[in-house]
Amino acid sequence: MEHLSVPAFLGMLVVILGSAKIMGALAQRLGQPAVLGELVAGVLVGKSVLGLVDPGREAVELLSELGVVILLFAIGLETDLGKLFKVGATSLTVAVAGVVLPFAAGYAACLALGLASLPAIMAAATLTATSVGITARVLADLGRLGSQEGQIILGAAVLDDILGLVILTIVTELALGREVSLGSVGMSTFLAVAFLVGALAVGRYVVPWIFRAAQRLNLPGTPTALALIVALALAWLADRSGSAMILGAFAAGILVAKVPAAHEIERGITEIGHFLVPLFFVVVGASVDLDALDPRSPDSRFALLTGGVLIVVGVAGKLAAGYAPFWFKGNKLVVGVGMTPRGEVGLIFAKMGLTAGVLSAGLFGGVMLMVIATTLIAPPVLKRLLGPAPLGEPEPVVEGLDNLVTEA
Amino acid sequence: MEHLSVPAFLGMLVVILGSAKIMGALAQRLGQPAVLGELVAGVLVGKSVLGLVDPGREAVELLSELGVVILLFAIGLETDLGKLFKVGATSLTVAVAGVVLPFAAGYAACLALGLASLPAIMAAATLTATSVGITARVLADLGRLGSQEGQIILGAAVLDDILGLVILTIVTELALGREVSLGSVGMSTFLAVAFLVGALAVGRYVVPWIFRAAQRLNLPGTPTALALIVALALAWLADRSGSAMILGAFAAGILVAKVPAAHEIERGITEIGHFLVPLFFVVVGASVDLDALDPRSPDSRFALLTGGVLIVVGVAGKLAAGYAPFWFKGNKLVVGVGMTPRGEVGLIFAKMGLTAGVLSAGLFGGVMLMVIATTLIAPPVLKRLLGPAPLGEPEPVVEGLDNLVTEA
Repeated sequence: MEHLSVPAFLGMLVVILGSAKIMGALAQRLGQPAVLGELVAGVLVGKSVLGLVDPGREAVELLSELGVVILLFAIGLETDLGKLFKVGATSLTVAVAGVVLPFAAGYAACLALGLASLPAIMAAATLTATSVGITARVLADLGRLGSQEGQIILGAAVLDDILGLVILTIVTELALGREVSLGSVGMSTFLAVAFLVGALAVGRYVVPWIFRAAQRLNLPGTPTALALIVALALAWLADRSGSAMILGAFAAGILVAKVPAAHEIERGITEIGHFLVPLFFVVVGASVDLDALDPRSPDSRFALLTGGVLIVVGVAGKLAAGYAPFWFKGNKLVVGVGMTPRGEVGLIFAKMGLTAGVLSAGLFGGVMLMVIATTLIAPPVLKRLLGPAPLGEPEPVVEGLDNLVTEA
Repeated sequence: MEHLSVPAFLGMLVVILGSAKIMGALAQRLGQPAVLGELVAGVLVGKSVLGLVDPGREAVELLSELGVVILLFAIGLETDLGKLFKVGATSLTVAVAGVVLPFAAGYAACLALGLASLPAIMAAATLTATSVGITARVLADLGRLGSQEGQIILGAAVLDDILGLVILTIVTELALGREVSLGSVGMSTFLAVAFLVGALAVGRYVVPWIFRAAQRLNLPGTPTALALIVALALAWLADRSGSAMILGAFAAGILVAKVPAAHEIERGITEIGHFLVPLFFVVVGASVDLDALDPRSPDSRFALLTGGVLIVVGVAGKLAAGYAPFWFKGNKLVVGVGMTPRGEVGLIFAKMGLTAGVLSAGLFGGVMLMVIATTLIAPPVLKRLLGPAPLGEPEPVVEGLDNLVTEA
């Protein structure tokens, strides 16, 4: 394939970013998270409709993957390990149930639909995700971030991100053609957890040392640029260690959050993220093949059926997870609905499956339907369940990174 | 060529950014601008030495070109058209003489060395550049930004950027194989100037309107992301209009500098620039073929000879430009030396010539020698001429964008 010319590349970026902003604003007008608008923008500018953006170009694909690395780094930056340990049994129960129930039900349903084991595992894995960004944003918009339900949902969503990352690592290994044996799954889990634990344990000392050394050496550039190097290096190292790239970026975020310049880095990463993260969502949207969802073809009917089944299983599984901590006296339905949106984490899984060739175009379309539907359902339902924001002190809208995660 | 894998891409970025920071710090230790360290870092990690970074990969090349667009946008952001008109006859005389003298002398010298007309024009064009970033930084470091000489140098360097951009547009046209006729040069000049004037005239109304509309529509993301879209769109439009991409990015910077969020955008662009701009300098360095400068080969001896001649002509031409405003009573030598560093503008010209196939590998090496030498000479000589920073109020170090331009 010939090299993309520089002006053609710039034009593609303008189309991607411009459509992302416009459709994102439209989505917000309709009371939906901006990320949904970006996905729809991708579908519009991608191969299915306008054909302006080719998601298969090396530069477009790699830049969008850089967006995921930065997104996971940003999620890591806002993840407080200490708080994570404090949210306690309720959040952990919701998180584990929210992974196990949708995965088991989704896997069984996919097998029942006649799918092979590997695609069934991949599709079921996308059901385990919870979007911490979308959840946090919706709760903040409704002024309920500080409520008991809000705290449980947030804690569970963060724990779910970690569980989801381990699952992603396993699924990645499986997608690479490794045997689906207990041993390989155990090894994958061990590698994922060992990398995370090892990176956090070693990084606790190395990362602050790097930032101190950079300051002593008067290294040119901002702390953000240095943080980015750490994030990219850990992502690369995670891949080299047999773990998942985004796990490395996530660990880098947790580590960098502890350095003195963390606040400045958060702002810088938000700026860079607003540029690179929408690329990922638009490119994901551009990868959707609408023809694969054409109800006139038998293959597509199967994909639509699968999508419908995944939506039902995906919503039911997370709702049930809300009821798992039976001792909790608050509104369990709110917790369940709050866990429903798959958002960016579900998309990352789906895109991985597509790139690895495990998800067919039709099944990818079905999974995308599920991700979009679950993400769409949660905000209006939560609004109805919780009512308007309580009077008095207005809850501050989650700023900075949360904006990035939801909006970008 | 097979697609670069995501981890390989991340690894390459880590090598590029990491080496840029380390060599940049080293350069600063030696009293040199960081950008020189980044160039040397590129030579080290590029094909000549370690072979870790392949400047020919689509994703690497396009990302580094994105770095140039952002650099020129940043230069535009800090260019105040009003101030530009105020610096008066002295700056304009220095700027024009600083373009005409080195170009004429360089062109004649290259022809005398037996070069063809087009490569001679391209090599001479690189001699016309003045690095506004490096000049501003050196003056600030020496506490002389506010001096009469400092103001003249700064104004002339900014004007020189515009003249250089027009020359670059002409040279681009020539490199595309158009006839070197007075008509085509006139047309190229007209297109370059017409685009700049037209973009500034129309953009004065359209750009603020875009930012107001974005605010009214509550467009997701930061003003920086929107500014970036404007910059990329104008760069694309400039190319489509037969002008140069970076002229569009530069015009976008001048226009965006007038919107209310300009200060926030400057900070955001600095963050993004610290990530993308070093990519450009390292990739330029990685394109240097040291073998082409091996004195044992006759071709290389010719390139070394050309480089030596270009250095002499390049320094003499800018020194003479400092003496051009004969009515000026201050230190004309300081003005001349201040105009000497070619920096990033010279590199952009050289890289263009290489990409277009007008500069051979050997001649590119010679031009690079000239850019590096003139950039290296200025800071220590200025320090010697001006002495240590005057006592009293410490001159604030040029911050934000100037840091980006020199350091990044």
